[in-house]
Amino acid sequence: MIGLDQIKDITRSTPSKIVLLVIDGLGGLPHPETGKTELETANTPNLDRLAKEGICGLVDTVSPGITPGSAPGHLALFGYDPLKFTVGRGVLEALGIDFELQEGDIAARGNFCTMDKNGIITDRRAGRISTSKCTELCQLLDGIKVDDVDLLVSPVREHRFVVVFRGEGLEDELSDSDPQRDGMPTKEVVPLATGAARAAHIVNKFIAQAKATLADHYPTNMVLLRGFAQYPNLPLMSEVFKLKPAAIAAYPMYRGLAKVVGMEVLATGSTIQEELETLAQHYDSYDFFFIHIKGTDSAGEDGDFDRKAGIIEEVDIALASLTSLNPDVIIVTADHSTPALLKGHSWHPVPFLLRSNWCRPDQVQEFSEKACSSGSLGRFLATNIMPLALANAQKLSKFGA
Amino acid sequence: MIGLDQIKDITRSTPSKIVLLVIDGLGGLPHPETGKTELETANTPNLDRLAKEGICGLVDTVSPGITPGSAPGHLALFGYDPLKFTVGRGVLEALGIDFELQEGDIAARGNFCTMDKNGIITDRRAGRISTSKCTELCQLLDGIKVDDVDLLVSPVREHRFVVVFRGEGLEDELSDSDPQRDGMPTKEVVPLATGAARAAHIVNKFIAQAKATLADHYPTNMVLLRGFAQYPNLPLMSEVFKLKPAAIAAYPMYRGLAKVVGMEVLATGSTIQEELETLAQHYDSYDFFFIHIKGTDSAGEDGDFDRKAGIIEEVDIALASLTSLNPDVIIVTADHSTPALLKGHSWHPVPFLLRSNWCRPDQVQEFSEKACSSGSLGRFLATNIMPLALANAQKLSKFGA
Repeated sequence: MIGLDQIKDITRSTPSKIVLLVIDGLGGLPHPETGKTELETANTPNLDRLAKEGICGLVDTVSPGITPGSAPGHLALFGYDPLKFTVGRGVLEALGIDFELQEGDIAARGNFCTMDKNGIITDRRAGRISTSKCTELCQLLDGIKVDDVDLLVSPVREHRFVVVFRGEGLEDELSDSDPQRDGMPTKEVVPLATGAARAAHIVNKFIAQAKATLADHYPTNMVLLRGFAQYPNLPLMSEVFKLKPAAIAAYPMYRGLAKVVGMEVLATGSTIQEELETLAQHYDSYDFFFIHIKGTDSAGEDGDFDRKAGIIEEVDIALASLTSLNPDVIIVTADHSTPALLKGHSWHPVPFLLRSNWCRPDQVQEFSEKACSSGSLGRFLATNIMPLALANAQKLSKFGA
Repeated sequence: MIGLDQIKDITRSTPSKIVLLVIDGLGGLPHPETGKTELETANTPNLDRLAKEGICGLVDTVSPGITPGSAPGHLALFGYDPLKFTVGRGVLEALGIDFELQEGDIAARGNFCTMDKNGIITDRRAGRISTSKCTELCQLLDGIKVDDVDLLVSPVREHRFVVVFRGEGLEDELSDSDPQRDGMPTKEVVPLATGAARAAHIVNKFIAQAKATLADHYPTNMVLLRGFAQYPNLPLMSEVFKLKPAAIAAYPMYRGLAKVVGMEVLATGSTIQEELETLAQHYDSYDFFFIHIKGTDSAGEDGDFDRKAGIIEEVDIALASLTSLNPDVIIVTADHSTPALLKGHSWHPVPFLLRSNWCRPDQVQEFSEKACSSGSLGRFLATNIMPLALANAQKLSKFGA
């Protein structure tokens, strides 16, 4: 597998355009009654045509058998080895709400949750409270100072918020306070490296103060923190791939992830049609577009097979406005599978198609997990996608003499 | 490829059960008259059904083009990169006869062989003498002391024995005395690292003494030693994969290999049916079972195409008692190919199937080299098997946020 240092030497800037359409959680499992996956169930004439004109395969975003979180799944799609480069959840959340992190800040993802009188978490999401309620609660906590550290608390969406610890000498090797399931007490945050002892102390003091502040706010009477992280230092897509990349994503975390690798995040409406309108508006200004569709993953997580299939059909209809722009390279794939049957991310490889004028079409006639398994790309790692995209956009010089 | 350190963080213990059935040397080459391999010739309705319900592929256990020895082949199947982790033959043989190695011991595999009056080896196996004859000869050599080093000589099976060198300051970087084919003299053992000079000296003195002791015992008048090795320090399957693993193998070396990665070796009869009875007896006590079938490899090594196909049919019939236990994950594959046409291990990839309730079946309809080549796993490295097994047994958490 070629490394970023090696590919950097052969990338070149050209006017050709690449569109990477990520249908989050697209891969599925067969419905017990029909034997067809969500994608195989949906009527997708546009995707089928792209598959027929293009090359297909099945992608392991991290490694075979591994269920990717959203961050490693996307980093891999962007060309960054997710086993080598990591981005903490807290940083992603902060970036996703346009929070301007400063060097040394530690960010964490927070949930408002419900705790019973014995200290047991009974609902990690406090009934998915409204974003306005979340904003109100954040105002109660924002600006708390623990010792000489400033606490900045900002709402994200529903029960979720970001807390940023700003002060001297903080290190981010910290365990989570979130037990990750209901019926357990919160965990004490412990330092996972000696340098993080001070940060752990500050975080635990903040949690105690938050608990006191929220005591009368049942069912949002406690906070759970996880994913403590400082801003990572990843090579930028503009440097490595010599692209001018833009991201179109309705959900904060995916915007945050795009920013980490140096994409410009475009303001957009949240429907699929609106996202594709955003693409059309900005089409002349960039040469790489990452478009993120969230609905498929949410439907999969909810176990709603039919809704997931329906959203895939919506994407297919909207595709017409994408293909009418005639990008040099169109890629359609996913960051991971989210089968409705499993109600969560899974390890199953994701279907992949790439269409360009120079792709040497294979024998695949439709876009489905089954059809992609006989594509000319075979089963391959996601870190190969960017080199394939750049090659098909004729943005790569020869390697070696 | 995810490393053991990384997968360790996401493995979790659950009650689900994994059975890894290794049909040693399963992969073959087409018979010149029929164009069908041993597996394609055998009638295998049970294997075909598992392939149809499961996912298939072709596995390179070490790397494409590389003919694996039994140790790297099995280490890879157990999830250990065989290019990184090595286990010397001598250690495997010693473990396989339940020899309790001490730290610093060097173990080697020995053959009793036949040497002519010119010092040429005429039969490396001395006509595959009986195990009782081997035991008798070992008694002649056991307990010899060379300088201050104790020599412990134990019979294995037929012409094979283990010799253990026990003393201070021995290092195991030693060449073999076994020329690996008939018609050659034995080789002097030379140190392959400066620290091993003393061990080489001791070993050569032992060989000279053994030759003198066996002079009147034609056709077992010489010894061949190979695979000098000290006990390796591999991470255990219980730690890395959080499994409680058990091994069912009739042959010593495979039991030894299982012990090296921390499997408990179950006492078993040696027929396929007896091995599967052992599985049923212990089914409740473990969550991972490695079952080793030796006959296919032996038949392949003997160049006996029909016998190999016959043993595959035996395995297929016996499979019913395995599937009736309804393991969460069944894997059937091999450590390497042993085509009867080549009378030895070969580099050809081995057919692979994995069946679970969550595997997203592909289009493969039968278990054969040809059919597996169009499976959704494509052609892949054996080190991916354990992650796939664990994922399908739902023993892996999400990787990253």
